Amino acid sequence: MCELLGMSANVPTDICFSFTGLMQRGGRTGPHRDGWGIAFYEGKGLRSFHDPEPSADSRIARLVADYSIKSRVVVSHIRQANVGSVCLENTHPFSRELWGYSWTYAHNGQLDRQLFDWPLTFYHPVGTTDSEYAFCWLLGQIRSRYPERPSDWAELQAFIHACCDQLRGLGVFNMLLSESTHLFCYCTTKLAWITRRSPFGEARLKDCEVSVDFGAETTPNDVVTVIATEPLTNNECWQKLATGEMVVFVDGEVVAQLKE
Amino acid sequence: MCELLGMSANVPTDICFSFTGLMQRGGRTGPHRDGWGIAFYEGKGLRSFHDPEPSADSRIARLVADYSIKSRVVVSHIRQANVGSVCLENTHPFSRELWGYSWTYAHNGQLDRQLFDWPLTFYHPVGTTDSEYAFCWLLGQIRSRYPERPSDWAELQAFIHACCDQLRGLGVFNMLLSESTHLFCYCTTKLAWITRRSPFGEARLKDCEVSVDFGAETTPNDVVTVIATEPLTNNECWQKLATGEMVVFVDGEVVAQLKE
Repeated sequence: MCELLGMSANVPTDICFSFTGLMQRGGRTGPHRDGWGIAFYEGKGLRSFHDPEPSADSRIARLVADYSIKSRVVVSHIRQANVGSVCLENTHPFSRELWGYSWTYAHNGQLDRQLFDWPLTFYHPVGTTDSEYAFCWLLGQIRSRYPERPSDWAELQAFIHACCDQLRGLGVFNMLLSESTHLFCYCTTKLAWITRRSPFGEARLKDCEVSVDFGAETTPNDVVTVIATEPLTNNECWQKLATGEMVVFVDGEVVAQLKE
Repeated sequence: MCELLGMSANVPTDICFSFTGLMQRGGRTGPHRDGWGIAFYEGKGLRSFHDPEPSADSRIARLVADYSIKSRVVVSHIRQANVGSVCLENTHPFSRELWGYSWTYAHNGQLDRQLFDWPLTFYHPVGTTDSEYAFCWLLGQIRSRYPERPSDWAELQAFIHACCDQLRGLGVFNMLLSESTHLFCYCTTKLAWITRRSPFGEARLKDCEVSVDFGAETTPNDVVTVIATEPLTNNECWQKLATGEMVVFVDGEVVAQLKE
């Protein structure tokens, strides 16, 4: 089961997703009956697509598959609902503005209900999931600590890592988070990444029947990192994150790696 | 030239937009070269599509045209850029969360540059348009005055009206704003609306080559109000808003009408 899928690259990459298998299985009995969503950054701009409905004939999936969106940061999520009903406002990724940046977030896992007692400050959930509540709490913590965009990102990264550790205290918290340049990846149970350089091929997600093709328009200088719940291929060496580890990517390269 | 287009209805309405003419004209020389965007509410959830690029072959326009999205509140905008370059983050409608609701906003007009000296509080623009800055200012004013969702919406509406009056002091401020249930429409120079009840037909926007078909699945009890920069049809009696007037719709019906 694929849950989280992210990308960080050093040039806008013409990432093509194929949802063929996913779309065929997206019925009431399929594993992906609870929707999926994907967010692409185009500069500071954010374009996102959400599909809460089970649909073997998803026009939105087809659009995303057909429409070549060039992006340096992608955050996506395929949902199997646990907390919160299946509806548009409960479909990841979630987004909020902070410091004039659109922050986007997707979560895999389940958190104890006591999360809902944690006080919120600036951001409030529109839906009813634990995931969105955790995002509002996390971004509120960042904003309280850093009312303005800090110049010292090392300190900020340590702070985000500490907040994620707190959330992990409530259960499983695997997360992708971005503000358009940085991609923060935090692991409780499973998250793996690989950095690819040219020549690029196709990465096939066997478990969730999504394939990603980076080969179309890449150049020799391109660096593309893919992060997913499980390694997407068997013939490459994926780096698995440890429990409590956070890795931060910029332009496809690791800029910070914070261990438990 | 069509700029703003909104809808308020008492049941989720299967609104079908046809962008045929628009797509054909969407080249470098066409009037809609600066993109367009549309936001649909599905309950509290918000689904939006933005297309900043001139494109005579817009897949997103085709998706919106093909995909039957049932919605009670729609806010859309076709842009001719004045302030701010043509890019995703400068494409209307803009959205921010307040009180656990996704607020969406689109603006037609141009405001004096002194707007950028007005202090912002909670919300900051991601792009560089006067329109998004005005939205951030407006929503910040609402939030400062009402940290929590008020029970008295008459007072809130008067407050929003007063804020819009302030913005009108800087130039042309025609606006559509919603939080999922209420549709606030403020006029400086041009904005018109019509409430339709069954039987529904097609409304053709001659000036911007967009047509809207409400006939597909409406029932005798349906009430659908359409708001646009200019009346869309010649054979019906559209209500034109006066300068400084704000009309608020809920379920397709007028719930408040505030004059200058």
